[in-house]
Amino acid sequence: MCFRGKMLSMLALLLMVLTGNVNGVALFEATERNCTLSPPYLPSTTVNSSLQLRELREHMLVSNISAYIIPGTDAHMSEYIGPRDARMAFMTGFTGSAGTAVVTPGKAALWTDSRYWVQAERQMDCNWELQKDVSISSIAEWLISDVPNGGQIGFDPFLFSLKTQEDYAMSLESSNRSLKSMPGNLVDQVWKDRPPISPDSLIRLPDRVIQRSWQMKVEQIRNQMKENPYQPTALLLSALDETAWLFNMRGNDIPYNPFFYSYTLLTMDEIWLFLHTERVTEELRVYLNASCSGPLCVQLKSYDAILDHLKEYVRRPGVKVWIGTEYTNYALYEVIKSQDKLLSSSYSLVLTTKAVKDDTEQRILRDAHVRDAVAVMQLLMWLEKAVPTGKESELSASAYVNHCRSKQKDSRGPSFETISASGPNAALAHYSPTVESNRKLTVDEMYLVDSGGQYLDGTTDITRTVHWGSPTAMQKEAYTRVLMGNIEISRTIFPSGTRGANMEMLGRRALWEVGLNYGHGTGHGVGNYFGVHEWPVGFQSYNIPFREGMFTSIEPGYYKDNDFGIRIEDVAVVVPYHTNYGHNYLTFDTVSLVPYDRKLIDITLLSPVQLQWLNKYYETIRRLMGPELDRQGLHEEKSWMLRHTKPLVQSGSFSYVHSSSPTLVTLAVAVLYNVAL
Amino acid sequence: MCFRGKMLSMLALLLMVLTGNVNGVALFEATERNCTLSPPYLPSTTVNSSLQLRELREHMLVSNISAYIIPGTDAHMSEYIGPRDARMAFMTGFTGSAGTAVVTPGKAALWTDSRYWVQAERQMDCNWELQKDVSISSIAEWLISDVPNGGQIGFDPFLFSLKTQEDYAMSLESSNRSLKSMPGNLVDQVWKDRPPISPDSLIRLPDRVIQRSWQMKVEQIRNQMKENPYQPTALLLSALDETAWLFNMRGNDIPYNPFFYSYTLLTMDEIWLFLHTERVTEELRVYLNASCSGPLCVQLKSYDAILDHLKEYVRRPGVKVWIGTEYTNYALYEVIKSQDKLLSSSYSLVLTTKAVKDDTEQRILRDAHVRDAVAVMQLLMWLEKAVPTGKESELSASAYVNHCRSKQKDSRGPSFETISASGPNAALAHYSPTVESNRKLTVDEMYLVDSGGQYLDGTTDITRTVHWGSPTAMQKEAYTRVLMGNIEISRTIFPSGTRGANMEMLGRRALWEVGLNYGHGTGHGVGNYFGVHEWPVGFQSYNIPFREGMFTSIEPGYYKDNDFGIRIEDVAVVVPYHTNYGHNYLTFDTVSLVPYDRKLIDITLLSPVQLQWLNKYYETIRRLMGPELDRQGLHEEKSWMLRHTKPLVQSGSFSYVHSSSPTLVTLAVAVLYNVAL
Repeated sequence: MCFRGKMLSMLALLLMVLTGNVNGVALFEATERNCTLSPPYLPSTTVNSSLQLRELREHMLVSNISAYIIPGTDAHMSEYIGPRDARMAFMTGFTGSAGTAVVTPGKAALWTDSRYWVQAERQMDCNWELQKDVSISSIAEWLISDVPNGGQIGFDPFLFSLKTQEDYAMSLESSNRSLKSMPGNLVDQVWKDRPPISPDSLIRLPDRVIQRSWQMKVEQIRNQMKENPYQPTALLLSALDETAWLFNMRGNDIPYNPFFYSYTLLTMDEIWLFLHTERVTEELRVYLNASCSGPLCVQLKSYDAILDHLKEYVRRPGVKVWIGTEYTNYALYEVIKSQDKLLSSSYSLVLTTKAVKDDTEQRILRDAHVRDAVAVMQLLMWLEKAVPTGKESELSASAYVNHCRSKQKDSRGPSFETISASGPNAALAHYSPTVESNRKLTVDEMYLVDSGGQYLDGTTDITRTVHWGSPTAMQKEAYTRVLMGNIEISRTIFPSGTRGANMEMLGRRALWEVGLNYGHGTGHGVGNYFGVHEWPVGFQSYNIPFREGMFTSIEPGYYKDNDFGIRIEDVAVVVPYHTNYGHNYLTFDTVSLVPYDRKLIDITLLSPVQLQWLNKYYETIRRLMGPELDRQGLHEEKSWMLRHTKPLVQSGSFSYVHSSSPTLVTLAVAVLYNVAL
Repeated sequence: MCFRGKMLSMLALLLMVLTGNVNGVALFEATERNCTLSPPYLPSTTVNSSLQLRELREHMLVSNISAYIIPGTDAHMSEYIGPRDARMAFMTGFTGSAGTAVVTPGKAALWTDSRYWVQAERQMDCNWELQKDVSISSIAEWLISDVPNGGQIGFDPFLFSLKTQEDYAMSLESSNRSLKSMPGNLVDQVWKDRPPISPDSLIRLPDRVIQRSWQMKVEQIRNQMKENPYQPTALLLSALDETAWLFNMRGNDIPYNPFFYSYTLLTMDEIWLFLHTERVTEELRVYLNASCSGPLCVQLKSYDAILDHLKEYVRRPGVKVWIGTEYTNYALYEVIKSQDKLLSSSYSLVLTTKAVKDDTEQRILRDAHVRDAVAVMQLLMWLEKAVPTGKESELSASAYVNHCRSKQKDSRGPSFETISASGPNAALAHYSPTVESNRKLTVDEMYLVDSGGQYLDGTTDITRTVHWGSPTAMQKEAYTRVLMGNIEISRTIFPSGTRGANMEMLGRRALWEVGLNYGHGTGHGVGNYFGVHEWPVGFQSYNIPFREGMFTSIEPGYYKDNDFGIRIEDVAVVVPYHTNYGHNYLTFDTVSLVPYDRKLIDITLLSPVQLQWLNKYYETIRRLMGPELDRQGLHEEKSWMLRHTKPLVQSGSFSYVHSSSPTLVTLAVAVLYNVAL
């Protein structure tokens, strides 16, 4: 699944303005609010926000604050949030995945990026102004102009990252407006029917998908803590996948993400797990060894007790708490920092340890991709037949692939909302179809499908772009160059510890040669039944260096506004590569196993080495998918797979020989001659 | 010229231990001090440091400090320093280009990196301990153990960068040892025969090498200051090439660098130039319009007046001084910061403006490379004939190329000490021959020569590696892969604004494929009669993005310890590239014009595109160097050049076709067949 730069923010994408269904412009105008009319025009999709605004302002008055900031995230800095954390949506009506709302006694404003401007105009009433520059300095500027001199700006420190707090503080510096950290969220006090915590019990992963028990992981982490020269005495786990990973447990609190609300404080001789204890079954208590207080006993504490417990811990003499600054909220950071007992790194020790998969995790994550490829092949095969009938659409294709995945062993639903995009809709890198935008699939347009599954053994994420009719020369060229980018990264050999950011241009280079490019990142980590974007692995500048056993997506693309979109995304694992002279060299092994659209590949653009890579990949698909399709009795799918993985042959000419050397030209002609015979 | 990561520091190179002349091990032992003997053994190369140490300690006592730090740099954070700034060398005897000395009442220690350990053992007496971990945290650790609790550590703030001060402050935090900023260098008070300022007059560049007069540059910079949203009122220029560039002036205060000691404070309506005013001739005063005080009058001030003048300026209400933090010393920073009137960026506006050459600068810098190539070709041609006679050495080759350059028009001497290295000496990336290490040149060893010239119109820097006998297969493979790296960077097409760090791996990729690598950076900016390392252009992570008109070296390498070293370095200019679909794409155009050693190129490793690039480059050499060699009447050199730039042809087989596809193999066989006919 493609993603935007640093946690969904990349300026280049600001240029991609939501243009919507080209057949529905007239309709669009009527679906958006018009606050300049009197009375304002409000479509039926808007939410009346007057009541919640009035009540929030009452609370603000009591708290003596002149503004209140409502971020779109949760206390764990999660990329996806649970319904009970959708405070911004509750206040504004706007349900997009990124944004910040601010309320003052007289005004209310929402900041969101270009992907969501139309949606915001459809969902918000005229109590809210829409602001388009999402930088914190721009929000601060707005605050300075609306908050009186000396006024206080309230925020919930559980919903601010360290960086967010720092950015606001810096932008407000010397403005004589101060930030007020206010634990106890004001929106929650207004939100009467706020969704409760899911009553579902948490689960432990079955032994067959586990190599390291939680006790082994705890020991591994403690050993690494001991090795740290700064001698931390405790590790605070804040990101939801950190606790889930450590205890081999999962939950269902966040859509598409098998996480549960939790924190962990791990010391050398104690383990405190903060969660909703009523969801822990007796069996789980036994599993966690929860009735004792020794070094391998998990002491269960209420989720809400984390702040007080942490305060108590840092009061102890000689302690030092290690946090990862990217996922720790400001409320917890404040407690440790004020006692000067902090050790920080960008990512916690658990996140960097989790990034390297053990043998079992590698094996089962590969397995999950084999089953996942069955579902994607079923979709592509079905589309080949169904699209020409003219009855299928982005939504029906999306439903079909979800259905195919659900039939696979250990399926746990999609890993994100399927991006099923035809023609111009695919030029919007983050498009997912809605009833309004839904486009019929036809043989005249390109189609992009970016989808993934959750399985008990792994998370998948794959994008294929296809054309069922006659692609234009430009579409073929762009597709082939995107594919070349994918291949160039996949086949590259590099020393262990090389950063993805230093190789990322290989994914763009073939596009750059003809003046094409794309405005999103080139890959992100994936994990075993976790979030589909598993940082800190990937190709961004803030990602950690590649080591053997890491999994990452590789996903270059190209988007032509109002016309079409191309993305080719595979997941690959970092594996050792034996070189003649050196040690510790690595390369990628692609674990996604679905062939590319042959119709869109201009073989003459590929170098011999690229073609060789491609044919070897197709051999791998045949070797791994053939038996699986047989096992599932999917004969038609197998024929489809064999047809689509036939070796590609550069025929007619060695067109990659662009040499001006007369001898080479002679040779190329000689080859032509031979082929013609 | 190759360089170490961030201003001569790259950990990888710590591994490159100076191993010296393999024939001279026994000799080496006797040339180093032995402080464990009683009395200590001191070779004749050591300097007796007792007197200066005693006197410095007396001054320290008076100043009430428990330690004094003596950095190896000057007040402008220069890479090369003038003799009067060689305070570390005066105190220790050690003359290496990188290091830090620290003196306490009872101890004295020098920190330098692995390149210089042997040299330090030869030059220092036993008053000094040699410390090998050059990190500031390691120096601080040593200070904490030797300085009593509550003690003060003195330093000259003119010799500390902001970063150095910050690093010491952080490392000493909560140690109860404090830093004491002490303007008025203590070493200078001890150094009786400190070299004076050169009495030579400064020069202005002739009009023929200038497109923009200093008045135009001042206007250009002021316009950019106006555009800055933070509204700076003044720009402080600290790096020596900043002032030299702004006024189109040069001096001779630093070996190999045509700089003069200076600062500039530029405001919207005044220009203050701080320098040794006695060196400014009447003609220069007229040129600088130095007798008035308007916006385009240069008010000359004494070099030493900068601190007081800056203090006075920042006392004015409403001013804001823009500095580049990389080259501003802590003494000046302190003054501005304490008044809260600072605007900072890593590099000053002048450095980033200077990085993009204007049309004239581009043209004359290309011209300088044409003349420079004549000298390098003369060297290579001469070596081909002279080496087999067995009479030539690293030193004689170095002298020869310097001599050849000196005969070229507008020559102003070498741009750095020539690296002339044979066999194992070349495995030391920063080796320059000395009388002790000097190695005879033979047809049995590889030879690396990295040299450059200063010309009135440009600075050059080029490395060629050759073999006059029969290179081994491994030497050929390594050389060819280094060349492939050079070509891959040179031919790459990229959007304007791409960072060098994001393309740098192209220089390593062919090496990585077989497990080879190198431990230095891949390129640095060069300028018009300036320092040979002209930051901030280059391929390091801290370099600025590439734009049209920038010049950079491209210099991958490979070093086999105790055996040989390879580096291929060219200078290239960033030029526009017309693409089919996009705008603002760039590529490199190589301006160094000396052919590579054909004997070392394994053509079968090159891709057709690489071979095409190489032959096109050779055509360019013929086109540009032929007329120049004719003009200089160098007929033998012209034949040599034509012989060495014959088109390279891939014969015998398409060995780059590694495909396992049966059809491709068939085609390759077919080609072979045709060739055999």
